[in-house]
Amino acid sequence: MTYCVGFRLKAGLVFASDSRTNAGVDYISTYSKMHVFEPAEDRLFVLLAAGNLATTQAVVNRIQRDLRDRHQGFIEGGGSSLGGRPDLCTARHLFEAADYVGHLSVAVQQDFAISLRQAGASGEASFILGGQIRGEEHGLCLIYPQGNAVMATDDTPFLQIGESKYGKPPLDFVGHTGLSLEDAARLCLISELITRRSNLTVGPPFELALMPADRLRISRRIKLEQDSREVRRSLEIWQACMQDGLRRLPRFAWEEDPL
Amino acid sequence: MTYCVGFRLKAGLVFASDSRTNAGVDYISTYSKMHVFEPAEDRLFVLLAAGNLATTQAVVNRIQRDLRDRHQGFIEGGGSSLGGRPDLCTARHLFEAADYVGHLSVAVQQDFAISLRQAGASGEASFILGGQIRGEEHGLCLIYPQGNAVMATDDTPFLQIGESKYGKPPLDFVGHTGLSLEDAARLCLISELITRRSNLTVGPPFELALMPADRLRISRRIKLEQDSREVRRSLEIWQACMQDGLRRLPRFAWEEDPL
Repeated sequence: MTYCVGFRLKAGLVFASDSRTNAGVDYISTYSKMHVFEPAEDRLFVLLAAGNLATTQAVVNRIQRDLRDRHQGFIEGGGSSLGGRPDLCTARHLFEAADYVGHLSVAVQQDFAISLRQAGASGEASFILGGQIRGEEHGLCLIYPQGNAVMATDDTPFLQIGESKYGKPPLDFVGHTGLSLEDAARLCLISELITRRSNLTVGPPFELALMPADRLRISRRIKLEQDSREVRRSLEIWQACMQDGLRRLPRFAWEEDPL
Repeated sequence: MTYCVGFRLKAGLVFASDSRTNAGVDYISTYSKMHVFEPAEDRLFVLLAAGNLATTQAVVNRIQRDLRDRHQGFIEGGGSSLGGRPDLCTARHLFEAADYVGHLSVAVQQDFAISLRQAGASGEASFILGGQIRGEEHGLCLIYPQGNAVMATDDTPFLQIGESKYGKPPLDFVGHTGLSLEDAARLCLISELITRRSNLTVGPPFELALMPADRLRISRRIKLEQDSREVRRSLEIWQACMQDGLRRLPRFAWEEDPL
């Protein structure tokens, strides 16, 4: 399992991911699910991946191959390995970049669809793609296994893939587009840690990337182990806040009138 | 959808349930999912139900019929409508009562298995059964759709059915068997409210029942609407605590050294 979250703020974008991959409960390994692409000086993308690891790795490999081929002159013009469709270098808008990743994902899944179906396995994968192309605002998309995508908005500023339920309430309760990059990163980290506590197929190290608006660079990128100061302290503080919350919750009517 | 939770404390048992039932998003209605049975003066049971409403209602109806038939003398001896199997009146242990409910549930599901399968629908249901039989400690079981059951223990004092993920972190973080009945009820209520905030197929009124150990009675039972004082204040306080938590989460290394 996996849990990734992206947050679109006025101040920029925040990305968070865990690093656990498992095939059953007896084959657990560690893979980064956060990929940064700087295809040209006027654009920057961060891709978070969840789902079948063979699919997500193949998608990342094909993106990298397309970028390499273009830089080496094997691809020219607006098209990509997907025919006339723009790639990360030539997309003029974020939604075109999402469209490219979505079509790559579907193409990879189709390559193995018959054998996966015969094995009763799923090759599905989901992605969060965020970034900025100069001249456009920064943006964030969730790309479904079927290749289509939805974008984060002011009303729905965060997007999640993978094991999304345990960690959603803190984002729902205190997340909004006015947070600083650092506060949103703390909130995404606690969302990861809560999820990890309830589902052991989500696991460390946890990765965070902060991308300020209009700078076309990742300002901070860190990887936190379970025994890091940030993780230990975050869990302690969150537990203390919940304990405090429980103490402050309203008494029932019969407790207020002990007669 | 549904979300029910039962908590087994040293001090007794706490039960919480929502009241929303939906068949698709355009047919939403309100049903209580909490059923109290007092089959004899030496025993008391509370049943929480999730899943197919036709199944859960049929199970409750058959339990009530068996109790009525026994009180009217139509059933005698240790057996029940399920042959030699003890019912709620004759069970000597909670696990026997869970076994009875589990077998009723499977019998109901099998009655309609063919037509449900043809319609592509599921008749599955899950139950939480808690209570006490004089001479035994109070206990809590989760009954799976397949009819088998697991019991709450000191290590795992709470059991959930239905939409269980959103509301689990507060139970994981601050729930333990030493809580008072009232504190556990507050915690179960906030778990319900958090779930309701993230999943609209869980909805009010929320029901709470408190059953002190060794008293063989429900000491408190309340039904709270979304606009009740308890619900509104609980949500306000929980949000304030999360905001406080976000403020207190540790700074990243680069924030502490602003050079």
